[in-house]
Parts: sequence; structure tokens; C-alpha cells
Amino acid sequence: MSLNVALAMPVHTAQAVFPPRSLDPLEPSLNLLSRDPIQDFHTPAGRSLLAKADILITGWGCPIIDEAVLEAAPRLRYVLHAAGSVKHHIGDACWERGVQVSSAADANAIPVAEYTVAMIVLANKRVLQIARTLHSTRTDVLAEQLFPDMGNYRKKVGIIGASKIGRHVIRLLAPYDLDVVVSDPYLDATEAAALGVQLVSLDELVAESDVVSLHAPSLPSTRNLMDAALVRRMRPGATFINTSRGELVDQDALLARVEQGDLYAILDVTTPWVLPSDSPFYTHPNVLLTPHVAGSLGNELERMAASAVDEALRLARGESLRFRVRVEDLAFTA
Amino acid sequence: MSLNVALAMPVHTAQAVFPPRSLDPLEPSLNLLSRDPIQDFHTPAGRSLLAKADILITGWGCPIIDEAVLEAAPRLRYVLHAAGSVKHHIGDACWERGVQVSSAADANAIPVAEYTVAMIVLANKRVLQIARTLHSTRTDVLAEQLFPDMGNYRKKVGIIGASKIGRHVIRLLAPYDLDVVVSDPYLDATEAAALGVQLVSLDELVAESDVVSLHAPSLPSTRNLMDAALVRRMRPGATFINTSRGELVDQDALLARVEQGDLYAILDVTTPWVLPSDSPFYTHPNVLLTPHVAGSLGNELERMAASAVDEALRLARGESLRFRVRVEDLAFTA
Ligand SMILES: NC(=O)c1ccc[n+]([C@@H]2O[C@H](COP(=O)([O-])OP(=O)(O)OC[C@H]3O[C@@H](n4cnc5c(N)ncnc54)[C@H](O)[C@@H]3O)[C@@H](O)[C@H]2O)c1
Ligand SMILES: NC(=O)c1ccc[n+]([C@@H]2O[C@H](COP(=O)([O-])OP(=O)(O)OC[C@H]3O[C@@H](n4cnc5c(N)ncnc54)[C@H](O)[C@@H]3O)[C@@H](O)[C@H]2O)c1
Repeated sequence: MSLNVALAMPVHTAQAVFPPRSLDPLEPSLNLLSRDPIQDFHTPAGRSLLAKADILITGWGCPIIDEAVLEAAPRLRYVLHAAGSVKHHIGDACWERGVQVSSAADANAIPVAEYTVAMIVLANKRVLQIARTLHSTRTDVLAEQLFPDMGNYRKKVGIIGASKIGRHVIRLLAPYDLDVVVSDPYLDATEAAALGVQLVSLDELVAESDVVSLHAPSLPSTRNLMDAALVRRMRPGATFINTSRGELVDQDALLARVEQGDLYAILDVTTPWVLPSDSPFYTHPNVLLTPHVAGSLGNELERMAASAVDEALRLARGESLRFRVRVEDLAFTA
Repeated sequence: MSLNVALAMPVHTAQAVFPPRSLDPLEPSLNLLSRDPIQDFHTPAGRSLLAKADILITGWGCPIIDEAVLEAAPRLRYVLHAAGSVKHHIGDACWERGVQVSSAADANAIPVAEYTVAMIVLANKRVLQIARTLHSTRTDVLAEQLFPDMGNYRKKVGIIGASKIGRHVIRLLAPYDLDVVVSDPYLDATEAAALGVQLVSLDELVAESDVVSLHAPSLPSTRNLMDAALVRRMRPGATFINTSRGELVDQDALLARVEQGDLYAILDVTTPWVLPSDSPFYTHPNVLLTPHVAGSLGNELERMAASAVDEALRLARGESLRFRVRVEDLAFTA
């Protein structure tokens, strides 16, 4: 008797994340109840799929799975999320009933880490500043005179948070001649050494790194983690990269430091995340803003789909979930 | 009896490439004749150092070592170049006399490959185009609507030339979910497989890659390698990266393709290498120009110094050179 699978997410999520062939691998060993996703758990169509589902594959915008939903889902044992955080749609009732939850946060960490590594390399070399100068002066640019400290040889990179993303950044940087330090209250020195990096205090990391890259999750305890004092402590000429969440940073202190002219900032996230149109972050030459694009977009969504499909196939083979999320993790994860 | 070492390069090269401590490792096992470099082989100071030197450590701008120089250098057996190509300063007489030559081209390949990998990741994700749009519109940018093909999952990257740089790009890309193909008349399919990539024809590479990155050396045989027909064959939406030399590309065809609007270009080198100020490459939004900065600059020069010093220490220990250049290599290397 194969397990019954249903999808639960808005149609536009399903269309973006699950291209037509991506669900095909499920069919030999699982019973895909419908290729049309449940959009609302309380419609007759939604309730009829819920009544039979052993596994729900969910995506961005899936409505919350709370006690009322679970009452209509007597067989439900697994929720496989084809996206990152499960905090928006997994109600307490899921944890209480012992529904097993898995997420594609590891798959979603990959593009963020790739973006970050590209930005670290370009930042240490001042490539974007130099390119801007060349495009505007249209004449030879003496890069080393403009930026005597340029280069990627033995610069120090500080990773705040050995999160999924932080760890993938560390892995990708392994072949570079960069000195990587990490700060994370949940990491000990032995684990850091196993990652090939050195564990330091947040204070030391911020004071000594040429690039400070923020990869901690947004939690009550990480609000304003990069507070004004830490922002002021960054080295002259340092680059601050934020792909995590705007609320982790004292943005006013960051702006003041940028306007002082001796700090570079690469920000994929801000508070609010679309800045008002008169924000000086748009115009300062030391700032690169991107509109929350470091995570999975375009074809990278397929990687999250493949991750959820792989989890379902593990269940079909009687194996345990690879990317299981436990309720006790939620206090310190994204 | 330890070997005698002299430096030969302009003072400004020596100051940039060899910071004060970088020569210290030579002293225990080699006899560094002077820390002042020979700038002209024909002055009394130059001739007196040449008369004693077993090893010359050379750098950018070192004058040519020809027959007249060798006559004044009866003991000279090794030239260790703390930079890339040796074609500018190693005269035929060096090869004829059997002087052993080594280069830091492997060390110099590293920053070029790092630049290239960063650009590949940003190009596939359209990050720079999206950032430019955000900075100019100052409002939410719907990146996936602008660029439905964005993302770094299973895109195809074509590397023209399994050169030192091309090979390091391939190594750095190994952990990425990218499909890397290579074209190189000096590579066979077995070697390509050992590098973890697929060997294809130049035609196929150009027609099928999402990013085409040029890493062949400049030789009579590679002039106009990316000719007009190949430039026109690149996929709509493809990105062309050139960190090799401008003369390998039909630049007019490239400009026509860029102006057509369906090709992106990232150019660290052009012909001439500072473009005239009215060149449309400066203004087209699909173009990123950098002023020949992909190679070693700033602290990256120290890596080349360390490479030459390591070679000298190998000789002091009676070992063979690690990065020996042979005269027969010159026909197909940079
Ligand atoms: N820009 C984007 O498109 C994008 C995409 C995905 C995730 N994100 C963000 O990136 C961040 C990291 O995501 P993730 O999935 O890698 O996180 P994660 O869930 O793996 O992070 C949890 C880990 O963070 C570390 N951590 C917890 N508190 C910390 C603290 N105070 N200081 C330092 N480290 C701490 C711990 O090691 C913990 O295990 C999150 O803020 C997430 O929202 C952004
Ligand atoms: N932008 C910069 O700052 C910078 C810095 C260093 C080097 N470069 C340039 O980068 C290029 C590569 O340098 P390198 O040191 O890696 O070169 P290299 O000397 O290692 O290249 C030699 C190899 O190129 C390959 N090759 C030869 N002819 C080819 C052809 N027709 N098609 C494809 N492949 C061919 C062969 O594998 C050969 O072994 C050169 O053009 C060099 O001038 C630029």
C-alpha cells in the first residue's frame, strides 16, 4: 500500500516551484492524489484530499496547518516543505500530534551562499567600485592607487552564524586563500575546527574582518544583533554583507557609517525591505542593494522541489527524513 | 656552498610584489646578494650582481635576458619569475644555454579564476542587472518577471581553454550545480573527464552555454578565436566573459550582439584595452567593464612573490622546480 501524497500551496507557487516533470519521480512508488494543489484546506476539494493524504508537500504561501486542518487529515504523518522556514504554516497542533516535518532550507541555503561568496570576492577586490569608476570616467583607472588594500589574498572573512547558509559559505570558501572566522553561540571550537574555521567572539569578528557577512536567523534574540556599537567597530574599508534579515542590524548606524565613507555595504535585505525612495542607500557609491534575490529564484526553485520529492521518495523506501525539522530547533533556526 | 640569488625588476615592481618580509625565508638557505633589484643589466651595479648570481628572481618589467646579459652571468642557471608570462624577458639565449625557467602563472591564475566564478554566479542570477534596476527605480523589482530564466541551477557554463586559469575555474565550480563544458584542442576527453567536465567542440560550447568564458592564451592561432560567426551563435540571454585578451574576440561583432539586447558581456580586457571614451561598451546596461583587474593586484601580488620564493627554496633543498616553463610550451601557452 503506497503512501498518499497531496500538494498544498497557492497555484502560482506550484507553477513556479514544480515544473510539469518534477513530480513524475513520485509516481512509481507513491500515490499522488492530485497534481492540483490544495489552496484552501476548508473547501470541499481541499477536505477531500486532506482526508486521504499521508504526506503533504507544501510550498510558499501554504495556509497554516492547525488543529482544524489536522482534524480533517486523519492519516497525515508527514509535511515536506519545498521552501525554507516552516514557521509560517506548521501550527502547534502538528508538533503535538507528532507529524514529521521536513524543509528544503538546505537547498534554499545554496543560492544565498553562492551570492555571498561572489560578493565577498568582488568586495575584497573592489571590483564593483572600480567598474563604476571606469564606466563613469571612461579612461584608464589605476585601481591599486585608488584601493591599495585590494585583493583576495589572506583577507579575513567573518561569518556571523554557522547556519545552513553560513556553513555553505564556509564550504565554498575552502579553496580560497582567505582566513575565515565565525561567531555563533551554538557552535563550539571543536565543531568550528571541523568546519576548518576559527571560532571567535562577535566583537572580535566584527573588529578584525575585512568582510563581515551576516547569516544568523531572525529571532527575538537576534534582533539588533549588529547593534550601533558593533557597526561602528567594523574596520575602515570593511564590507558588510547582509543576506539574512534587515531587523538584525541597526540600519541607522549602518547608514551613518556608510556616509562616513569608510564602509562598504552589500544588502539583499533591509528594513523595510523595500526602502523608501529617498533612502541614501540607493545613491551612495559604496552600497550595492539587491531586492531580496539571494535565495532561490527562477530555476533555483527546482532545487527545492527536488529536495521535497527526494524526501517523499525516502519515505516510500521506508527511510527516515533527511532534513527533518524538530520543534525544539525553532528557537534558534530561521 | 649556498646558491646566490639576485632580483631583477624595476624598483616599483619590487616594492609592490615583495613586501619587506617576503624575502626573509630565503636567507637561511640561500645567499641573497642584495635586496635592491637589478634594474638595468648593463650598469656596473647590475653587472656585478649578475657576475655572481646562480638564481635570478624576476618580476614585471624585468629587461630582456639575452645573450649579452648571459655573457655577464656565467653562473646563472635559474630564472624564477614572480609574475605570469615569461615571454617578454626570457631571450632565446636562455633556452639555448639550458637556463631553467619557472613562472608564477599558476599563482596569477587564482585571482582571475576567482573573479570569473563570481561573475558566472552573478550573471546567471542577473544580479547586477537587477541591482541596477533597483538603484534606478527605487521601488520593488520583480526580478523573476524581468528575468524568467534567472538562477544558477543546472545552467551550462562553457570554458574555452583548459589553461591554468580555465582549470582553476573548473575546480572552483565543482561544488556548484552547474554543467561545465570545455573546449580546448590540447585536451582529450579522458583528461576532461578527470577534470570532471565534458569536452565539446568550440561550436557546440558557444551555441549551448548560458555563460561562455574565455581562457585561451593570446597566440597567432587564437587571434579572433571568437570570430563574428561564433559571437552570433551564442544563445539569446547568454553572458560572454573575457578575462584573457581582447584580440581573441571579434569586438565589433560582440558590440553588435550586445546592442541587439540579447547578450550580456563582462569584459576585463578589450582592444584597445582602454576603450575610446565614446565606446558604447561604457553605456550599454548589459555590459560590465573592468580595467584589467582580474589578475594579481594589491595583496595578490604577495602570492606570486611567495610562489617564486618557494621555487628558490626548492632549489636550495636540491629539489626540481614545481612550475618549470619549457621552451616547447611557449607555442601554446600565455
Ligand atoms: N536573502 C534571502 O533570500 C534569504 C534566503 C534564505 C534565508 N535567508 C535568511 O538567512 C538567514 C540564515 O538562514 P539559514 O536557513 O541558514 O538559518 P538556520 O535556520 O540554519 O540558522 C540556525 C543557526 O543559526 C545559528 N545562530 C542562531 N542564533 C545565532 C546568533 N545569535 N548568532 C550567530 N548565529 C546564530 C545557529 O548555528 C543555528 O543553528 C536567516 O535570517 C534567513 O531568514 C535569506
Ligand atoms: N585579466 C587578467 O588580469 C589576466 C591575468 C592573467 C592571465 N590572463 C590571460 O588569461 C589567459 C589564460 O592564461 P593562462 O595563464 O591560464 O594560460 P595558459 O598558458 O595556462 O594557457 C595554455 C593552455 O591554453 C589552452 N589552449 C591553447 N590554445 C587554445 C585554443 N586555441 N583554444 C582553447 N584552448 C587553448 C591549452 O590547454 C594550453 O595548455 C591568457 O590569455 C592570459 O593572457 C589575464
